[in-house]
Amino acid sequence: MNQKYEELKTRLAEVVDLYGAAAVLGWDHRTMMPRNGAAARAEQLGTIVRIAHTRFSSPEIGKLLDELEPWAQELDYDSTEASVVRGVRRDYDKLVRVPPELTAEMSRTAAIAEPVWQEARKKSDWAMFQPYLEKVLELKRRYIECFDPADEDYDILLDDYEPGMKTAEVRTVFEELKAGLVPLIANATERVDAVDASFLEGDFPIEAQKRVERKILEAFGFTSDSWRLDETVHPFASRSGPDDIRLTTKHVPDSLSSIFSSMHEFGHGLYEHRTDRELARTPLGRGTSLGFHESQSRMWENLVGRSRPFWQHYFPLLQEAFPARLGNVDAEAFFRGINRVRPSLIRIEADEATYNLHIILRFELEQDMITGRISPADVPEAWNKKMLEYVGIEVPDVADGALQDTHWAGGAIGYFSTYALGNIISAQLWQRISTEIPDVYEQVGRGEFEALREWLRENVHRHGRKYMPRELLQRVVGGGLDPQPLLAYLGGKLGEIYGF
Amino acid sequence: MNQKYEELKTRLAEVVDLYGAAAVLGWDHRTMMPRNGAAARAEQLGTIVRIAHTRFSSPEIGKLLDELEPWAQELDYDSTEASVVRGVRRDYDKLVRVPPELTAEMSRTAAIAEPVWQEARKKSDWAMFQPYLEKVLELKRRYIECFDPADEDYDILLDDYEPGMKTAEVRTVFEELKAGLVPLIANATERVDAVDASFLEGDFPIEAQKRVERKILEAFGFTSDSWRLDETVHPFASRSGPDDIRLTTKHVPDSLSSIFSSMHEFGHGLYEHRTDRELARTPLGRGTSLGFHESQSRMWENLVGRSRPFWQHYFPLLQEAFPARLGNVDAEAFFRGINRVRPSLIRIEADEATYNLHIILRFELEQDMITGRISPADVPEAWNKKMLEYVGIEVPDVADGALQDTHWAGGAIGYFSTYALGNIISAQLWQRISTEIPDVYEQVGRGEFEALREWLRENVHRHGRKYMPRELLQRVVGGGLDPQPLLAYLGGKLGEIYGF
Repeated sequence: MNQKYEELKTRLAEVVDLYGAAAVLGWDHRTMMPRNGAAARAEQLGTIVRIAHTRFSSPEIGKLLDELEPWAQELDYDSTEASVVRGVRRDYDKLVRVPPELTAEMSRTAAIAEPVWQEARKKSDWAMFQPYLEKVLELKRRYIECFDPADEDYDILLDDYEPGMKTAEVRTVFEELKAGLVPLIANATERVDAVDASFLEGDFPIEAQKRVERKILEAFGFTSDSWRLDETVHPFASRSGPDDIRLTTKHVPDSLSSIFSSMHEFGHGLYEHRTDRELARTPLGRGTSLGFHESQSRMWENLVGRSRPFWQHYFPLLQEAFPARLGNVDAEAFFRGINRVRPSLIRIEADEATYNLHIILRFELEQDMITGRISPADVPEAWNKKMLEYVGIEVPDVADGALQDTHWAGGAIGYFSTYALGNIISAQLWQRISTEIPDVYEQVGRGEFEALREWLRENVHRHGRKYMPRELLQRVVGGGLDPQPLLAYLGGKLGEIYGF
Repeated sequence: MNQKYEELKTRLAEVVDLYGAAAVLGWDHRTMMPRNGAAARAEQLGTIVRIAHTRFSSPEIGKLLDELEPWAQELDYDSTEASVVRGVRRDYDKLVRVPPELTAEMSRTAAIAEPVWQEARKKSDWAMFQPYLEKVLELKRRYIECFDPADEDYDILLDDYEPGMKTAEVRTVFEELKAGLVPLIANATERVDAVDASFLEGDFPIEAQKRVERKILEAFGFTSDSWRLDETVHPFASRSGPDDIRLTTKHVPDSLSSIFSSMHEFGHGLYEHRTDRELARTPLGRGTSLGFHESQSRMWENLVGRSRPFWQHYFPLLQEAFPARLGNVDAEAFFRGINRVRPSLIRIEADEATYNLHIILRFELEQDMITGRISPADVPEAWNKKMLEYVGIEVPDVADGALQDTHWAGGAIGYFSTYALGNIISAQLWQRISTEIPDVYEQVGRGEFEALREWLRENVHRHGRKYMPRELLQRVVGGGLDPQPLLAYLGGKLGEIYGF
């Protein structure tokens, strides 16, 4: 059996190598590539992903899994071998159900729809984008039909991003979250004058931003031996292997957003960097779900990077970097400013609290589209209605409404909710961390992150995809998804800042 | 047949995509990758190249070639279809002769030998490197045995870099070249005081170097839409596709070497950039040989970039960039300085004339190693003897002697001669260019390169690998390899500079 397991690992290693190569090509595309290289790059990526997919879903891997499963079931559940057989079986069974023609059509449709979406957004023209959304939905329905019926069709889409998660569960959690957030946000917005954030707009020379950012990232654990940070248009984190982590950011001279965005991407990078090396050339050497990934990025961005102790330590550095803009601001005012609640149109610009409402809105609309309760033509109106109801904002045009995100054009339906799940999980983890490292915020206040980093490695990172997100959460916090820690955290912070 | 040809093209396109992806991974490795990423990158490159190799040498491609050959032979010899079938047949027949185990062992040996070579060079310790060279030679002998016997074993190695070239032919040409160069170099070195090059050492701020370099490259045809220029340790040119050309350089603050090195790499890049787009996703969409490639790089570096008219035009720009160092130098003195002949130890630092002697020495030693006339243990002594005889220099230590180049560690035996073949071909082409564009140097003297670029595209670049190097040379200059144009060019330039 060991020989069969080695054969499985060899075959999987090739697949992992191909995906790692695709990650480099993708990163290069978005950071380095001369723009006329796009056509050849699309072919290269298409070929590599197709070969990886074909090899992963090959009958040989199916046969090896059949042979290895009885053996693996006798092993310790937590062992690498048992976990690899278990995890790969799940991936394999999903892959083989989808005909390559459908996969290819989904890729092609995304490639065509994305530039149309860009154009439609520029022109604020929903009708231009609508037929492509219809096509995406049709393909998603065909995709759903490849699988055994689930409790709800949307479960099957959700599973691609948050394996094992059920729509009903997310719905319940989001309802509870929404119920808590709406009054919280109302309380804060009523006291709009309580927080001044005007000093966050202005002139922040990019070279100085880079220096501060670098110092923070290095204190977090970024080293030039294993990490990079480059410029791009839409920041992301990528990795070619666990010791080759690539963060990206977008520096703009009139905002400090890059500092927070880089802390965010660092959280994604650290997760990938600290998976067990034993998992490295297996499909388990990644984060276990998008929700868990986002819990890591949001933790470093928000629970650490928007905390009072953090800025008590780092604000002098910032002030020194931007004396003209921040010379007359103190750490406390800065802390309040970066936590200001202000309902706004655009998800990616939203504050920590209202952000979740943007997600809930999308989660609901996606379900309505999949069940057919609303048609693509009705999306902008439904969007605007919910924006008014949840966020309290009138949408002036569809470019800043239903056309603001690229996800649907790319075929990523079911993805959005993982952003809010990440916020929820990050607060659940932090609650646990605060018990096990009671002085974690004192450490943050001294610019010390070692204990936090080690806790995350021990409890989350090292496992990669050995456990399903639900199992991992159970192991770490001893329970399921729970929005209360997030509500308590936001309620505490905002209550203190706004005085309610 | 058209359908079979389309099937062949589809299969080849995948192989080309994989090699294009490998090129990006290799470029990234040498310019961007955090160093701890090396292990994963080696696996990724190994996997991609192995898959590409396996697919290229698959029985399906063999069968398609068998079926297509009679059809292709009826087509115009110059047609893309006939050329693809002809060229791919040649590649295929070579590939299938080498067992994958041998290919893998050659790669593994190179991967192990290269760091040993670096260390041995650092310690100037031939004995440390010798067993690895022995292993490389043993593998090369096994490689030679995979093929039908040639006139000389070394022919088989040479063919990998300069397809169709024969050792005997190179030997004859190199003898003639050496016979012409030795007195030429002696004449120049006797008049050592005739040329001052002291102003080429000193303080050349890197930012200013970059500005000048960029202006020159842009005049040559570099555009940011399709090209990049990045820093690396050992400069090279790479390409992911014909519209994604990546040059690299190494800026040092005490020399202008990067400007010449970048003109050199530009020549390589332009060749790849201007192949017919019809060949792009076929194995013919590349330069036809290393010798022809080097003819392009050496042309832009030397025949253009070390010419008097070129610096009559560009010297003011250089002087403006480095007023402290070059304020009191004139264009003529600069032209003389950059063409100074000074025999030296290191190939990559050699002047345009003695460079060829470094190559001839290696070409001879490689043959002696392959025939067994000398053993690896005897290489340093033989090296030193030839250096004294051809270049007139005593080698003080093996680090600056037989250990100076990485090629043998990487298994590249047969490669070196293409550097000198490139010099020879560049002068043959230039002779032809001077007939067809009689005012080419007047144009260079005005910073105009369009006619030259178009001539190269029409006569060389666009064909890619449609013609074997011998055929291409015959088409363009109406004859075979001939060292006389190079000797005439060097004799003319040096005679004028040194006054003999």
